[in-house]
Amino acid sequence: MVNENPLILKRHLEDEEGAMLLQKERATSSVRPEAMATFIFGGQEALSRRLRALAFIEKDPVFDTKDRKHLDQKSRYVRSSEKAVHLVLKCRRLGIPFTQMLDILNVALDEITPTDVHTKMAIPSLMHQTTPEQRAKWLPLAENFRIICAYAQTELGHGSNVRALETIATYEPSSQSFILHSPRLESAKWWPGGLGKSATHAIVLARLLLGGKDKGLHSFIVQLRDLRDHTPLPGVTLGDIGPKLGFMSVDNGFCLFDHVRIPREHMLMGLAEISPDGHYRKRKGANGGEKILYGAMLDVRAGLVERGGATLARALTVAIRYSAVRRQGYAPSPPGKLSQSAPLELQVLDYPTQQHALMPLLAWSFALQITGQFMRRRYKAYLRELDLSLLPEVHALSSGLKALTGEVVSQGVDVCRRMCGGHGYLLASGLPEVFSNYTAVQTFEGTAQVLEPQLARFILRLSMAPTERPKASGRGAATAAKAPFALSSDFDYVPLAAGKTFVRCRAATPVAFLDPAFQIEAYEARVSALLLLAREEVEADLRGGEGGLAASMMKNGVLFGRLSRAHCQLVLLRRFHEAVAREEGRMTMTTARNGGVDGEGNGGRIDLGAADGSEEGESEDREETVTVGPAEVRVLRNLCHLFALSGMERDMAEFRARDYLSSGQAEMVSREVLRLNRTVRAEAVSLVDAWLLSDKLLGSALGRADGRVYGALFEEALRSPLNDKEVSEAYTLHWRRLLMAGDCAWENARL
Amino acid sequence: MVNENPLILKRHLEDEEGAMLLQKERATSSVRPEAMATFIFGGQEALSRRLRALAFIEKDPVFDTKDRKHLDQKSRYVRSSEKAVHLVLKCRRLGIPFTQMLDILNVALDEITPTDVHTKMAIPSLMHQTTPEQRAKWLPLAENFRIICAYAQTELGHGSNVRALETIATYEPSSQSFILHSPRLESAKWWPGGLGKSATHAIVLARLLLGGKDKGLHSFIVQLRDLRDHTPLPGVTLGDIGPKLGFMSVDNGFCLFDHVRIPREHMLMGLAEISPDGHYRKRKGANGGEKILYGAMLDVRAGLVERGGATLARALTVAIRYSAVRRQGYAPSPPGKLSQSAPLELQVLDYPTQQHALMPLLAWSFALQITGQFMRRRYKAYLRELDLSLLPEVHALSSGLKALTGEVVSQGVDVCRRMCGGHGYLLASGLPEVFSNYTAVQTFEGTAQVLEPQLARFILRLSMAPTERPKASGRGAATAAKAPFALSSDFDYVPLAAGKTFVRCRAATPVAFLDPAFQIEAYEARVSALLLLAREEVEADLRGGEGGLAASMMKNGVLFGRLSRAHCQLVLLRRFHEAVAREEGRMTMTTARNGGVDGEGNGGRIDLGAADGSEEGESEDREETVTVGPAEVRVLRNLCHLFALSGMERDMAEFRARDYLSSGQAEMVSREVLRLNRTVRAEAVSLVDAWLLSDKLLGSALGRADGRVYGALFEEALRSPLNDKEVSEAYTLHWRRLLMAGDCAWENARL
Ligand SMILES: Cc1cc2nc3c(=O)[nH]c(=O)nc-3n(C[C@H](O)[C@H](O)[C@H](O)COP(=O)(O)OP(=O)(O)OC[C@H]3O[C@@H](n4cnc5c(N)ncnc54)[C@H](O)[C@@H]3O)c2cc1C
Ligand SMILES: Cc1cc2nc3c(=O)[nH]c(=O)nc-3n(C[C@H](O)[C@H](O)[C@H](O)COP(=O)(O)OP(=O)(O)OC[C@H]3O[C@@H](n4cnc5c(N)ncnc54)[C@H](O)[C@@H]3O)c2cc1C
Repeated sequence: MVNENPLILKRHLEDEEGAMLLQKERATSSVRPEAMATFIFGGQEALSRRLRALAFIEKDPVFDTKDRKHLDQKSRYVRSSEKAVHLVLKCRRLGIPFTQMLDILNVALDEITPTDVHTKMAIPSLMHQTTPEQRAKWLPLAENFRIICAYAQTELGHGSNVRALETIATYEPSSQSFILHSPRLESAKWWPGGLGKSATHAIVLARLLLGGKDKGLHSFIVQLRDLRDHTPLPGVTLGDIGPKLGFMSVDNGFCLFDHVRIPREHMLMGLAEISPDGHYRKRKGANGGEKILYGAMLDVRAGLVERGGATLARALTVAIRYSAVRRQGYAPSPPGKLSQSAPLELQVLDYPTQQHALMPLLAWSFALQITGQFMRRRYKAYLRELDLSLLPEVHALSSGLKALTGEVVSQGVDVCRRMCGGHGYLLASGLPEVFSNYTAVQTFEGTAQVLEPQLARFILRLSMAPTERPKASGRGAATAAKAPFALSSDFDYVPLAAGKTFVRCRAATPVAFLDPAFQIEAYEARVSALLLLAREEVEADLRGGEGGLAASMMKNGVLFGRLSRAHCQLVLLRRFHEAVAREEGRMTMTTARNGGVDGEGNGGRIDLGAADGSEEGESEDREETVTVGPAEVRVLRNLCHLFALSGMERDMAEFRARDYLSSGQAEMVSREVLRLNRTVRAEAVSLVDAWLLSDKLLGSALGRADGRVYGALFEEALRSPLNDKEVSEAYTLHWRRLLMAGDCAWENARL
Repeated sequence: MVNENPLILKRHLEDEEGAMLLQKERATSSVRPEAMATFIFGGQEALSRRLRALAFIEKDPVFDTKDRKHLDQKSRYVRSSEKAVHLVLKCRRLGIPFTQMLDILNVALDEITPTDVHTKMAIPSLMHQTTPEQRAKWLPLAENFRIICAYAQTELGHGSNVRALETIATYEPSSQSFILHSPRLESAKWWPGGLGKSATHAIVLARLLLGGKDKGLHSFIVQLRDLRDHTPLPGVTLGDIGPKLGFMSVDNGFCLFDHVRIPREHMLMGLAEISPDGHYRKRKGANGGEKILYGAMLDVRAGLVERGGATLARALTVAIRYSAVRRQGYAPSPPGKLSQSAPLELQVLDYPTQQHALMPLLAWSFALQITGQFMRRRYKAYLRELDLSLLPEVHALSSGLKALTGEVVSQGVDVCRRMCGGHGYLLASGLPEVFSNYTAVQTFEGTAQVLEPQLARFILRLSMAPTERPKASGRGAATAAKAPFALSSDFDYVPLAAGKTFVRCRAATPVAFLDPAFQIEAYEARVSALLLLAREEVEADLRGGEGGLAASMMKNGVLFGRLSRAHCQLVLLRRFHEAVAREEGRMTMTTARNGGVDGEGNGGRIDLGAADGSEEGESEDREETVTVGPAEVRVLRNLCHLFALSGMERDMAEFRARDYLSSGQAEMVSREVLRLNRTVRAEAVSLVDAWLLSDKLLGSALGRADGRVYGALFEEALRSPLNDKEVSEAYTLHWRRLLMAGDCAWENARL
């Protein structure tokens, strides 16, 4: 019946209008997506790697995601297992090395698999926390997926407070083994990805008991399942923790140990070791080891920031394309000219409210991507030079950035969904799934309430001159006070904090706000004011004398959160400006050398030659590269302005603290944001095109590159399992009883 | 294996600590939940009705929700159909009338069913848009569920812009029938609840064509399926639109008409009629009919506000109870007193950050409940007196309130989930489902971007003195300008707007902010400043001369949104203060009569006698009522303060517009909010207890009234479909291929 309807039969021929609208958007934009893409992904080489990864996935039917919307928990787990296994076996067959497989996993495989934790957390642990002998044994096994290893830290009773984990590993010198034990229900490992049904092993964090003494937490590699048949080993109780908001493709699991014995060599001894007779010692140079661990965490967090940008861009690709295709509501007619004939409706992207929701997020996606890449370059430089002096700063920053990214991106993705109206609520839009999975970032590896105070404390301590520094009570405080570390210019505001906040912004016109120096000043003034306030509060508490610094910090947690976010936004803004300035610099040099630059919207390539002063640190095939031209740079500049000013608008109260901005200036900022929204809107479709997200990856009827959304929505609807029969079993089983209630069953077809 | 683990076997004996912690919270609170409940639900009678509804559902296994987390889309639809049918048949059997069944549906049945739209939208349409003859025919059929009727307004191509709907109903005088037709794919009805598989009929909004003339949109009752066997009638193409973020229990559907003929009498002719020969006329008194329709919409929106409060309370019940049970992190030790023995961990509810996330939301849940009930009383009074003069105001307000409620509650529910850490991400927490379903409120019946400008325009027009009012271009404007309507004191600020914003807040100490008059002044100053700004912008645009009022309104959509939200918050605050003042008044009177009031935390009952000056409008059994005493009223007062001040903190930039608040005053507000958070935190568990949400309704391992969360989490985990076998089929099918790869299959159990 459905398939007899003529409109449904020719659904693919409809939607000319959507296609036409996107074409128009692209034709009138000055941005060339291919050129912008090299900027976004940090050079031609990275871009090519990315495209190769995408191609690897796109062509292979096993990696298809079409069925996903209709699978229940178990089928989804089985399907994602299939994908994970297929990926490894295929790479093995084609001789694709592990690092390249990681690219594919991160960039192109649109599925969270049960082995993600194995590759992203367990393998790094085996790399950085082990002795050379342990590494030689375990790494090949893990990298070749001869074992699958969960990372089991969190317990039912403890997540944030790692120090309080309860799993016990008691060393028994007589047998040279550890006895792993879960003393009570709350000490069950709970949450680790892959632990429930997939993993053969786990890196288990447990409290080391040595001769009755608690030596604190250590990592152990523990075998969980029989390698021949996958049954759990004696004393190991394993299972899945049940359905979740997202991550349905992963068997997050629980595990209880009942006096499970493992060999002495299964403690990861890179940082500390136990001799056969039970002698414990920290390793020489273990400090360096700790720092390498620290560094590895930075890499993870840089990845989180970058992936945050990409996730937001994904949601924006859907919402912006659909907003260009969706017409809804009439343009206001000029007074006195009420026409009777049906006027054309507006693209919803033309509503200032729609722009206000989406354009600042677009700016954020670029800011996050730029900053995440910067962090990764830092991490690489750090690996090269082993210059550890900036580490404390970067580590503190990464805590704050992780929290802020998680919040902005989660909320942003949800905004994108809502800006698609009702159709955004369909799984066919591809958006609900992005939110459900991504929002977990706000929780795992630390909630904002736990991470933000870490950055805030770092800043606060910096601001306290050694003499005024209170006697530090926590260990962290002592370390920060003693350690010789360097500071980047991101913290320039700190010593000035007290004085600077009484500066008033001198902008007298909206244009004045478009000066980068002005913007940085404003962001510095804002964070300074918060810092000053935090110091005043803490100092008052300390004078008050109840509780020490730690108590005061806890009491001021809300303020500390603000301080952390304010600092991170300053850093994001700086990175954004630097990146744009670098591109502007290239333009100028090109102009100087070539005697001219390409005009606006010109599709030509620009030869940057060798002298670009970039810090990319990656060799690029510069001669053949499509790279950003003046038009793209202008757009980037506007995105950066929008990032700065919409951020000011959003947290205006903080920029108005100590009256840095006046009430009138605040109004100017809002007006300027609206103007920038309009400017960026004109380029919005090309800007999301530049993220190069394929239709397959988007999995969205609304976000299609060709704009043919309505036929695609029908296409998806026809796949609904409820449409398998004309008359549902719900009728036969239930509705019939109601509608045909005994005494008065209908006998006619119609009323 | 799992069931052999001793810890799992005795899981129910664990968790003594959680039980103890909740007991402690309850024992130290001054709030008696039963007393507070009579306040929340508006009197003893309403409360009893509610409890009866809950009891009806709780005892019946058909209504159980345990299986829900594990059902796929189709099984969920079939299960919810079962529930809907069972409810009706059982009520029929027990002689429970329709209105009481509605109570059960709204309050107690925790499932969105395929007949919800039938009962909540189609039946009201049949009541208010019909002639007496039509009513006599259709209402009994619908109320007895002899037919099931979807409400089909939205189309694939049009939702917000109702005026542009494309379904056509052409009148053919020769046959005295309408020919319903869907001219193109985008004109398919798309979204209506129950339309896909359940409904036999639909109220269809279609464009009436009469002798080639477009007479605009009208409603038709259209039969969709054969009453004997539920097959779609000829020319009707029906189906489900596919899986969604939420509402999985409902068959939101699509429908295409291919020249479907329906009798003339099937146009709902309450407002306009067509004679057999095709003569069209508006009905006499149709204006009154329109107003009744209008009124019915108010009732729906009052319900949305009230249910918003209850939904938030539900999420808060889980988050607050769990935050009291969850211990995580050590209390900061006083300086110099670092103890080595493991100290007790803090209840996370004691973290100021946790309080800051949850306590203001608790205040919101009360504000919404109070305001929703007020609106419903208004609606009832309006039905009694048919005094239509306040209707325009109330209608505009309800648009803004619907939008604001949707936003605050959706975000609030998500906050509650995140405040439960990782465990909140489990479906077992009960929270993800609440969000997924509730967030649809932000979309259906109008997005914020569409609704908020309606209230803002209303306010703006009020503020323009007749002489300055620009020539209205839209129809709405003309109506507002001409119509004789009354205004409540909620709009007192409007004429004063221009002058008032230059007032500065005189609060010199934090306590000053606890004066209701002060708070109202602040909220009025804030909305006045926004109004003034809006007027300035609009007037400048009009002077500028491009586009008229409508164009300027669209351009200022973002500002108008702020204006709408600011006005609504003022109204919520007023209602909250009024409700608390009323209770305070009762206390005073009781004191006067009885010569004293009960002391703090006293469990005694207070006899209010008859003279309470309440506006409840519902007879209460006052003699026997457990009602709020001085302790509860004090807590309500603090909740109200917290509502006021946390709202000020959240939107501080608006309160600082035109420097109404100074920078120093802003800091005072924040400090006061933290203090109020702590105060309310002490009562938080009892306050959520007062919402009387049963464990069954909450469906949450974390929100259990007895605090035994960890055993319950395990209980739920054991139900995971992945735990049906020790070794998953994912191993047999996939992992095995990887782990046992041909050449190097494992032969030993262990490494
Ligand atoms: C999808 C997903 C995958 C995961 N994968 C893994 C994995 O592979 N391996 C693994 O070991 N774990 C994993 N986890 C667990 C994750 O790391 C924890 O959930 C996370 O660390 C938060 O801890 P928690 O759940 O105990 O929350 P809690 O700490 O209980 O938090 C509850 C509330 O208390 C607050 N709170 C807690 N401590 C403080 C404090 N000191 N100050 C202020 N507020 C505080 C939190 O902010 C939160 O609001 C995963 C979790 C999820 C959701
Ligand atoms: C769960 C659910 C149940 C539903 N049930 C029913 C039902 O039973 N019957 C029925 O008929 N319908 C139903 N609907 C449809 C619902 O009423 C529409 O989705 C809603 O009215 C929004 O319209 P839209 O989807 O066309 O969004 P659009 O109007 O396309 O909105 C897209 C975007 O454009 C913006 N926009 C649109 N117009 C304007 C404007 N004038 N100014 C500024 N911005 C604008 C919106 O804010 C949004 O950001 C249901 C929807 C859902 C999600």
